[in-house]
Amino acid sequence: MESESVTCQEHYINPLFTDFYQVTMTYAYWKAGRHSERSSFEAFFRKCPFKGEFAIFAGLDEVIQFIREFKFTRYQIDYLQTQLPHAEKEFFEWLGTLDTSEMIVKGIPDGTIVFGNQPLLSIEGPIAIVQLIETPILNLINFASLICTNAARMNIRSGGVKCIEFGLRRAQGPNGAMTATKYSYVGGFDGTSNVYAGMLYGIPIAGTIAHSFIMSFESEDDLKDHRTLNGVDVLSRAREFRDELMWTNTIDSELFSFVSFGCSYPDNFLCLIDTFNTIESGCKNFLLVALVLAELGYKPKGVRLDSGDLAQLSKDCKKLFTETGAKYGFDLSQITVTASNDINEATIVQLNQAGHQIDVFGIGTNLVTCQAQPALGMVYKLVQIEGKPRIKLSEDKEKVLIPGQKKVFRVFENEVPSFDIMC
Amino acid sequence: MESESVTCQEHYINPLFTDFYQVTMTYAYWKAGRHSERSSFEAFFRKCPFKGEFAIFAGLDEVIQFIREFKFTRYQIDYLQTQLPHAEKEFFEWLGTLDTSEMIVKGIPDGTIVFGNQPLLSIEGPIAIVQLIETPILNLINFASLICTNAARMNIRSGGVKCIEFGLRRAQGPNGAMTATKYSYVGGFDGTSNVYAGMLYGIPIAGTIAHSFIMSFESEDDLKDHRTLNGVDVLSRAREFRDELMWTNTIDSELFSFVSFGCSYPDNFLCLIDTFNTIESGCKNFLLVALVLAELGYKPKGVRLDSGDLAQLSKDCKKLFTETGAKYGFDLSQITVTASNDINEATIVQLNQAGHQIDVFGIGTNLVTCQAQPALGMVYKLVQIEGKPRIKLSEDKEKVLIPGQKKVFRVFENEVPSFDIMC
Repeated sequence: MESESVTCQEHYINPLFTDFYQVTMTYAYWKAGRHSERSSFEAFFRKCPFKGEFAIFAGLDEVIQFIREFKFTRYQIDYLQTQLPHAEKEFFEWLGTLDTSEMIVKGIPDGTIVFGNQPLLSIEGPIAIVQLIETPILNLINFASLICTNAARMNIRSGGVKCIEFGLRRAQGPNGAMTATKYSYVGGFDGTSNVYAGMLYGIPIAGTIAHSFIMSFESEDDLKDHRTLNGVDVLSRAREFRDELMWTNTIDSELFSFVSFGCSYPDNFLCLIDTFNTIESGCKNFLLVALVLAELGYKPKGVRLDSGDLAQLSKDCKKLFTETGAKYGFDLSQITVTASNDINEATIVQLNQAGHQIDVFGIGTNLVTCQAQPALGMVYKLVQIEGKPRIKLSEDKEKVLIPGQKKVFRVFENEVPSFDIMC
Repeated sequence: MESESVTCQEHYINPLFTDFYQVTMTYAYWKAGRHSERSSFEAFFRKCPFKGEFAIFAGLDEVIQFIREFKFTRYQIDYLQTQLPHAEKEFFEWLGTLDTSEMIVKGIPDGTIVFGNQPLLSIEGPIAIVQLIETPILNLINFASLICTNAARMNIRSGGVKCIEFGLRRAQGPNGAMTATKYSYVGGFDGTSNVYAGMLYGIPIAGTIAHSFIMSFESEDDLKDHRTLNGVDVLSRAREFRDELMWTNTIDSELFSFVSFGCSYPDNFLCLIDTFNTIESGCKNFLLVALVLAELGYKPKGVRLDSGDLAQLSKDCKKLFTETGAKYGFDLSQITVTASNDINEATIVQLNQAGHQIDVFGIGTNLVTCQAQPALGMVYKLVQIEGKPRIKLSEDKEKVLIPGQKKVFRVFENEVPSFDIMC
């Protein structure tokens, strides 16, 4: 197997992936001969996101990788020279020599529960470079921590129901999607629909069919000869069950698509059932094919709901699975219900209150874009320079800093975390 | 000059950057021998974002690039085989032969004003591949169109005041930031703080100093000898102005930092002035150095406000510029005021009502994360197969599709767009 390297972030996350004022300040430090002064910056947030009581820190790996590889290319320096035409030539030569070998980076491990005003990342080194890297560092930890926290909160609310991330199509750009998948998994999710993230990060992937697959079947002809499994004509046998059960309202074209899908995935038969009418057509058509599969010794896997009253429909589905199975002597209680459609923290709470019987939540848009609060306001502040603490006084009391380098200790009682001390 | 290629999206946006159900469906189509059936899909949204009356389409270039380069690698196919262990070997061989040579892509040009339910992208080709690419296509156009629309709305509200994008640190991941910068520029923004986007896309970049630069100065010693410009001791001369103007309340350390910055950027002197007290210290310290620069024949450039009542402060600053300039016979009316700090569409409206005198808005978090609505619900639906229109019937009336391939005509009267016809 040839291997595929994970280098996208390296490409974007380079020394120019920063705010221009970091560069203008660097020149000013250099002009003043202060660029090597030893300084400390700390990254922290003031308020926990989602009006919550905690956050989960994430992004440390990317920060370390970025700092390790930090080096201007000639092409990047030439570009900067066009943007600072009056700056001295020697400045650009010096930029070319910059590296991060004199820096000390201390960070909280990915996945740690953290609180406001604690230093989450502490970076010490020559002021010019510690300042230059502010923006990419914040970019790398802000969204990673936000999505990780969002996922953890949804996961806690779900009370043991599996959570799968479904947000790729609605995420904020390709990397927004990849970061969301990666860190929702760190935050406790069980899998993703995102195949590429599955490959890169080893996250379990899940997926079944879409409405378009079902709609692509119109007549029996669309099945061609793809209706036979182990010598049994699945469509004819399903129709026999339909006649016996008197489920005359199920939509034919939907049944054709389920037959075709069942013949492709007899071991992994999971259908989207809300294309027409969830219970009267979708769930029943699913069961017709599921009964044929059960007769053939397979275990039908589940259904997915993507609209309607998810709590009620999940209960109705489960009831129909059990009743129908019992009629034919099959135990269909293992059939799962996956529910998606604009699920967020509040919806999960409502579904819990309604006593749902959902086995898997598929959560997309509201998870990956962190719709409840789409940005984490992590900041990165100068706290010490040449050994002397620095404080930012502000008329806005909330913005006044605690000066100096700080450490945080988490106190455990009987192996249970009790409180944090900062000193 | 060596060149740097823009290949990040190619890396992420590959055939595996998709939902797993696209792959499971593809196998089912292949098993049924239906994979080559000619089908048409259309991408559209139902409701304009931000409760608005229009959207701006964007992302076509990325879609075309992705489709052009679509090809599974051996490594990717090997991974898929681990995820579909029961699928036939021939399926994976066939995947390796897939390309997009038989596809027809029709799309709206980037930056076009569009409305709900219009097809924005129409893709025709063998059903297996047209289905496979659904997810990456939606990912590429959803956020690009959303951010472009968001930027255009803010730009319209700003009524001619320049808008600069400042959101890199708070964006949803690196690519979220890059996409936001690129498409806020398409949406009418004037520049960005994002240096890398400046280089890749030729967008003007802007930037000055942060609080940390100002806080890094404590005593006169921190200036070292970086206080002299064209033979004039800028600090001493600034202090003479201070004595004359009796501005005894300005903070010394701030003045030192402005002197140092002014000596680095005499042609481009722009300071952040709200570190301590915006008018009583920041604006006055700025003017002290600005007066020295003006005496030396330079044109001081501007100030940036990042907190407080931005409308009132902008008026106070402008008044002080004019009065102080007049005292010494300098025209300081060209000095600009840039305002940032959580600006969004609503804040711009409020600032307009308060009669602000801001020249440039720096807009970050709320722009780049589209906080008012962080996702655009663009969908991609099967409308035709083997020449036959397909309709999705749904109990949810809003989700019922208009079947068949559609065309949109924009009718112009006297070169002004009047209405759109879809047929």
